[in-house]
Amino acid sequence: MKIRPLHDRVVVRRKEEEATTASGIVLPGSAKEKPNQGEVIAIGSGRVLDSGDVRPLDVKVGDVVVFGKYAGSDTIEVDGEELVILSESDIKAIVE
Amino acid sequence: MKIRPLHDRVVVRRKEEEATTASGIVLPGSAKEKPNQGEVIAIGSGRVLDSGDVRPLDVKVGDVVVFGKYAGSDTIEVDGEELVILSESDIKAIVE
Amino acid sequence: MKIRPLHDRVVVRRKEEEATTASGIVLPGSAKEKPNQGEVIAIGSGRVLDSGDVRPLDVKVGDVVVFGKYAGSDTIEVDGEELVILSESDIKAIVE
Amino acid sequence: MKIRPLHDRVVVRRKEEEATTASGIVLPGSAKEKPNQGEVIAIGSGRVLDSGDVRPLDVKVGDVVVFGKYAGSDTIEVDGEELVILSESDIKAIVE
Amino acid sequence: MKIRPLHDRVVVRRKEEEATTASGIVLPGSAKEKPNQGEVIAIGSGRVLDSGDVRPLDVKVGDVVVFGKYAGSDTIEVDGEELVILSESDIKAIVE
Amino acid sequence: MKIRPLHDRVVVRRKEEEATTASGIVLPGSAKEKPNQGEVIAIGSGRVLDSGDVRPLDVKVGDVVVFGKYAGSDTIEVDGEELVILSESDIKAIVE
Amino acid sequence: MKIRPLHDRVVVRRKEEEATTASGIVLPGSAKEKPNQGEVIAIGSGRVLDSGDVRPLDVKVGDVVVFGKYAGSDTIEVDGEELVILSESDIKAIVE
Repeated sequence: MKIRPLHDRVVVRRKEEEATTASGIVLPGSAKEKPNQGEVIAIGSGRVLDSGDVRPLDVKVGDVVVFGKYAGSDTIEVDGEELVILSESDIKAIVE
Repeated sequence: MKIRPLHDRVVVRRKEEEATTASGIVLPGSAKEKPNQGEVIAIGSGRVLDSGDVRPLDVKVGDVVVFGKYAGSDTIEVDGEELVILSESDIKAIVE
Repeated sequence: MKIRPLHDRVVVRRKEEEATTASGIVLPGSAKEKPNQGEVIAIGSGRVLDSGDVRPLDVKVGDVVVFGKYAGSDTIEVDGEELVILSESDIKAIVE
Repeated sequence: MKIRPLHDRVVVRRKEEEATTASGIVLPGSAKEKPNQGEVIAIGSGRVLDSGDVRPLDVKVGDVVVFGKYAGSDTIEVDGEELVILSESDIKAIVE
Repeated sequence: MKIRPLHDRVVVRRKEEEATTASGIVLPGSAKEKPNQGEVIAIGSGRVLDSGDVRPLDVKVGDVVVFGKYAGSDTIEVDGEELVILSESDIKAIVE
Repeated sequence: MKIRPLHDRVVVRRKEEEATTASGIVLPGSAKEKPNQGEVIAIGSGRVLDSGDVRPLDVKVGDVVVFGKYAGSDTIEVDGEELVILSESDIKAIVE
Repeated sequence: MKIRPLHDRVVVRRKEEEATTASGIVLPGSAKEKPNQGEVIAIGSGRVLDSGDVRPLDVKVGDVVVFGKYAGSDTIEVDGEELVILSESDIKAIVE
């Protein structure tokens, strides 16, 4: 199964959550804050401008990205794995 | 009966809900979360741009699409079946 | 008495409500959900674009239309009949 | 005293309220719903477009108009009579 | 002391409040509703359009204007007198 | 230490608060309303238009300005003095 | 590890918080207000205009900037240090 994002959408595999605190305490699921970082898995064809033209995205497959604190609520399960679907505008930075 | 969406609207047949959990428990209707995926049944002529021009849609009939978590509240019953009416902008990705 | 909608407005005669459930129970007025479908009775001259130009509407008199769940609160009584006034953008699809 | 609306504003004399119900009961003031119809008394020079150009209005003095349910809160008293000041976009239709 | 409004701003001297009701009862300050009319004292150079061009205002010094019910909260005291600062878009009509 | 506002921002030294009422009562800090007037100390290079062009500001250093009632929450301490940072659009008028 | 902001984003190292009040009292973490100043560490390629063109940013690496009171909630940990990710429009001024 393959997923192809529409327009300015980007599919991201969220970074693994830290399940243990610095002091070694194992955190239960609900106490863990989901990291807002991940790897780009697929990108759309580009953002549709008001003129109708399409502007290609500036992130590419393989980029590790940081996204907004309140982004990331739209997800899709692909082959048993939950992936995040973002708009490019939700992406703040690329980590190199 | 046939339904023809207006402009950037798309009619989608929502994917069947899973009525049984992984562990085999049968879920009652109210405990099931409606899947935000489905098959495109009909599409509009295109998005009307600010200039008045029309931009044809990038999804087509037969596409399996993922839509936003909070989209999908507008529905229509066609031949006893409830279909979802979305804007193309509610569609996040195409599953292939 | 005749009603002529302004610009992108459309006057719709709402579909009759089902007053009896499938199992034959007669519903009181307050328990009936108003159907968001109806027939177009009159249309405006078109949507005024930002440029000031007018774009003719894509629905026409006689079309049976589906409108949004939260649209339809503006009404007018014409010859004892309550009609709904919508913007074309409230119309989701045409039923054929 | 004369009132000249600015730009896309329109001054409307609201239709008389029905003070008696169909069954002959006289309603006290607070139980009467103000009708959202009236006659156009004066119109502005036109809507100022983003370009700075002015688009003349499509309603004219003498038109009987239907306006939105939630419009009509701005009023002015002229010669002891309360008139409503609307934007043309608050006007839904013209009754002929 | 002179006040020069910026861009589309207009300075208005609010009409005197009626301190006595029609039946001759003197109203205390808190029971009086401030009239939303007044005389234009000074005007700005014009509205700055999206293009950066300036469109001169359509009201002029000396005009008696009606402004919106919820406008008029920005005031300035000039020579012991409280004046209202409005945007031209808050002005509904000119009284002649 | 010098502060250079970005784009359409303006730095203003707020007018001294009146610490004594007309009748000679000394007001404690919390009972004093901060005056929405002040002197322009520094201005940005101009407002960035949608086209990307820059429109120089219409206020200049030394102007005494009146700003909106709800503007002025962004401040910076420069050499022990609290200054207000505004957008030009928060400025209503210039006092001469 | 290096971070490259997207488009109009800017990465800022927040100024150290004052942990001691003027009178010498040591403040606990929760009583300290985070300063809305910091040094620019990295900048994006520029703001994408509606036309699709890119406008280079007006802040540069090394600038000490003041940002809005309510900005700065998006952060990223780089080499054990928490950095703030802002849009250029959140930046009010440059301190020189």
